[in-house]
Amino acid sequence: MKWIAYFNNIVKVFPMAVFSLLTACNTGSDALKEQPNIILFLVDDMGWQDTSVPFWQDKTALNEKYYTPNMERLAEQGMKFTQAYACAVCSPTRVSLMSGMNAARHRVTNWTLRRNISQDKEDDFLEFPKWNVNGLQVTDSIDFSTEVTPLPLVLKDNGYFTIHTGKAHFGSLQTPSENPCNIGFDINIAGHAAGGLATYQGLKNFGHDENGIPLRFNSVPGMEQYHGQDINLTEALTIEAKHALDSAMRLDKPFFLYMAHYTVHVPIEADKRFYQKYLEKGLDETEARYASMVEGMDKSLGDLMDYLDQKGITDNTIIFFMSDNGGLSAHDRGGEPHVHNAPLNSGKGSAYEGGIREPMIVKWPGVVQPATQCDDYLIIEDFYPSILEMAGITNVKTKQVVDGKSFLPMLLQEGTTAENRDLFWHYPNKWGGHGPGIGTTSTIRSGQWKLIYWYKDQHFELFNIHQDIGEKNNLATEKPQLVKELAKKLGDYLRSMNAQRPRLKENGQLLPWPDEELN
Amino acid sequence: MKWIAYFNNIVKVFPMAVFSLLTACNTGSDALKEQPNIILFLVDDMGWQDTSVPFWQDKTALNEKYYTPNMERLAEQGMKFTQAYACAVCSPTRVSLMSGMNAARHRVTNWTLRRNISQDKEDDFLEFPKWNVNGLQVTDSIDFSTEVTPLPLVLKDNGYFTIHTGKAHFGSLQTPSENPCNIGFDINIAGHAAGGLATYQGLKNFGHDENGIPLRFNSVPGMEQYHGQDINLTEALTIEAKHALDSAMRLDKPFFLYMAHYTVHVPIEADKRFYQKYLEKGLDETEARYASMVEGMDKSLGDLMDYLDQKGITDNTIIFFMSDNGGLSAHDRGGEPHVHNAPLNSGKGSAYEGGIREPMIVKWPGVVQPATQCDDYLIIEDFYPSILEMAGITNVKTKQVVDGKSFLPMLLQEGTTAENRDLFWHYPNKWGGHGPGIGTTSTIRSGQWKLIYWYKDQHFELFNIHQDIGEKNNLATEKPQLVKELAKKLGDYLRSMNAQRPRLKENGQLLPWPDEELN
Repeated sequence: MKWIAYFNNIVKVFPMAVFSLLTACNTGSDALKEQPNIILFLVDDMGWQDTSVPFWQDKTALNEKYYTPNMERLAEQGMKFTQAYACAVCSPTRVSLMSGMNAARHRVTNWTLRRNISQDKEDDFLEFPKWNVNGLQVTDSIDFSTEVTPLPLVLKDNGYFTIHTGKAHFGSLQTPSENPCNIGFDINIAGHAAGGLATYQGLKNFGHDENGIPLRFNSVPGMEQYHGQDINLTEALTIEAKHALDSAMRLDKPFFLYMAHYTVHVPIEADKRFYQKYLEKGLDETEARYASMVEGMDKSLGDLMDYLDQKGITDNTIIFFMSDNGGLSAHDRGGEPHVHNAPLNSGKGSAYEGGIREPMIVKWPGVVQPATQCDDYLIIEDFYPSILEMAGITNVKTKQVVDGKSFLPMLLQEGTTAENRDLFWHYPNKWGGHGPGIGTTSTIRSGQWKLIYWYKDQHFELFNIHQDIGEKNNLATEKPQLVKELAKKLGDYLRSMNAQRPRLKENGQLLPWPDEELN
Repeated sequence: MKWIAYFNNIVKVFPMAVFSLLTACNTGSDALKEQPNIILFLVDDMGWQDTSVPFWQDKTALNEKYYTPNMERLAEQGMKFTQAYACAVCSPTRVSLMSGMNAARHRVTNWTLRRNISQDKEDDFLEFPKWNVNGLQVTDSIDFSTEVTPLPLVLKDNGYFTIHTGKAHFGSLQTPSENPCNIGFDINIAGHAAGGLATYQGLKNFGHDENGIPLRFNSVPGMEQYHGQDINLTEALTIEAKHALDSAMRLDKPFFLYMAHYTVHVPIEADKRFYQKYLEKGLDETEARYASMVEGMDKSLGDLMDYLDQKGITDNTIIFFMSDNGGLSAHDRGGEPHVHNAPLNSGKGSAYEGGIREPMIVKWPGVVQPATQCDDYLIIEDFYPSILEMAGITNVKTKQVVDGKSFLPMLLQEGTTAENRDLFWHYPNKWGGHGPGIGTTSTIRSGQWKLIYWYKDQHFELFNIHQDIGEKNNLATEKPQLVKELAKKLGDYLRSMNAQRPRLKENGQLLPWPDEELN
């Protein structure tokens, strides 16, 4: 297998490098262990309700539809976050995760693929900014990218053996960071520039011909040993991840496993192991296929948890569960659109909760109280400082400004970062899907309030999230003073980030900041 | 064509970036023009005598054998350097060229190919250091590499349109700098990690099958439009380079064309256009093939010079001609070994002059006096500061320490950097070829003297290069005091560079510095 060969080569040629001394420092809290193993289990395009674990009041109809026993098991052993946010599309989230920066700062505001080419859809009225279409990079030699000290590199430099599995999508094609090994991962299993995939099916060689030649730009690389086999990619990735963990343990180093599944991204293909069950349950074919993908993902989580038990390392391993944006609920998803994340409105690509609220769970044996729940909000860039703090890594010099705040106080039930904190989203782009909340917007969440600013016609939507999680009642007209206050905060924030804005096509003028029209 | 598509895409999406303001500064010398175009014409494995241009006293038998009318034309219009040095193998030279560092400092001391894998041949007695097998990189995230601000990036950042054509070989496979676009080139034609090539023949698709799939790691990439055509790679690269120059001129920017031919590296394949002539001249098949490759290279030079004339930009274009190491004279070359660079001894891979002395010419209309000759010595790392000075770029902040010295004073005939200067080579590796001067050595050139230190048995060779260019008379026993002085200088230099040394396999001990045995 590719990575085994790679790994053996490292060990053979450079034993001193692999067994370098650990340089992490303790944070000082007695509760924190030295150098825990870390699994960051990130699902692609998974919605807040695509699980049997309730993340809202009691169980919803969607919670009844899906079956994720291992997520239930994880939630029973850890802390569930009911208001964990990401960005509305994948690349901004992944760059924030790996850098700790808000999207307004890192400027990878839409999804990336081709070098120097924007994926923004054409608009009749708006011209979109020259955002960082080349993604996250570790050098200043690549135009249109954000230069950072990425999370895996910091972990690696502090003694971790770092494993990338699944979807990478950090940098565009033909740039350094299309290869996860170039941002600090010791091992790369199946990651490259593309964010989507040709097929989950081993029988279809994950999108390669019989000679192993990729048929599409998004054929899944590096899984040749499974070509022709009747295996789902999700299962194959899990097996490979466990092999990589075997190696990590032979090295006697703590590991960081970034288990970034391609699933449950389109194409919505049945995971045969679970598909029939959902048909029998009465779901239509598309829904049965989707639910089988969700359960396949859940099995992967369970397999990894079982692996930790078998190896006796459960007690010193942190597991994070997260998704990268809301569940797809527009084109390609099938069924009635915009309700797949109910009670949330809309889905992937939307500024509404359906586009940005994620199922998040954190397990840390001996530190995080089992079966607990945190209702404070947090956002994706918080993972970066949180993980470093939990790994006992302090005084890190990063090239980038880290906007995120460590959510360790919430995990320890010793405080919150949510108090007096506003969260921000910035999307000066055009995704292409259609539906509620999908467009060129900037957003602020401040306590129970959420204000969305629409660039094209400079109108506002104001919601009370505590009372109206479905964002059906726009209170902007009713509460002009509150709109003004929040717009001012949003404008101040965006200016402080040197955020990019769209322009009007007809005259090239920048569209106003959220608070400019009100003054 | 690939680069045209790439180029058009840049222009289409980011016109502001491409037409960014020039930020170069003048050096203050009236003789220097603002922002000249620059062609760096680098031949691979070309020996000092592989040309009809005499670089020694009068014409040699080898000068009579080869026919390079365009090099003659260039020499008539510029300055010929008779003592221009490079390293004995390719990667150290190319990294020094692109960084301005001596190989002892950058530690890319042998040739690169696979990530994290050393290409050192196994030795019974010596264990080789963990040198920078991943080559030159623009980031600190890659183990076993030297992080630099590369020459093309500096030129690009100062207003140049930068074109890579031919052999790249800057970084190992699967690392950022395997792609020249990741070290500051706007365009890459045919460059990747490999230093060699499968074949020069378009009819053999440059090493691809009929579907364009590479058959070997060193199949030449990006030349699909010539697959199946009866064209030599050297010709095809020249045509593509001219297309790229067309684009540069449309941009109204000065250009930097790095025309780094794969030729005259093995495989020694006939260039059909010139092959018959050499057979008729009485050369054997191998020699006729080799001579035809040399003339094919020379035609490329002439074509580029003609192009400059046609476009009316000859007067503002500097041309550098250089090779990257001595001509191959061991395995694979054919004929009697070690005499292909006569009067120099040995060839590629050797510490002797045959391994390191290069045919160098610089033309700069209106600045460099035509038909002149400089006999002062210089070394490959001097190109970096020279090119920047000639481009009028000052106050460059580089990540690396630049060891090279600008040879502009010699070009202007206003002075020399050779006086009171010693040159150094450091090769703590094993190349694999056999022959005179080929082995694990460090070397100093000081005036007329040259001292070579052999690590394995710590013996010395001392030559008077002025009197004994063929390095036949080792004067080490005769002049112990001089050996001691030069060994001290060499040891001091290597220690100041924090140079790497081989170890004895039997006990793991570092072999002594050149001056340690003598104290």
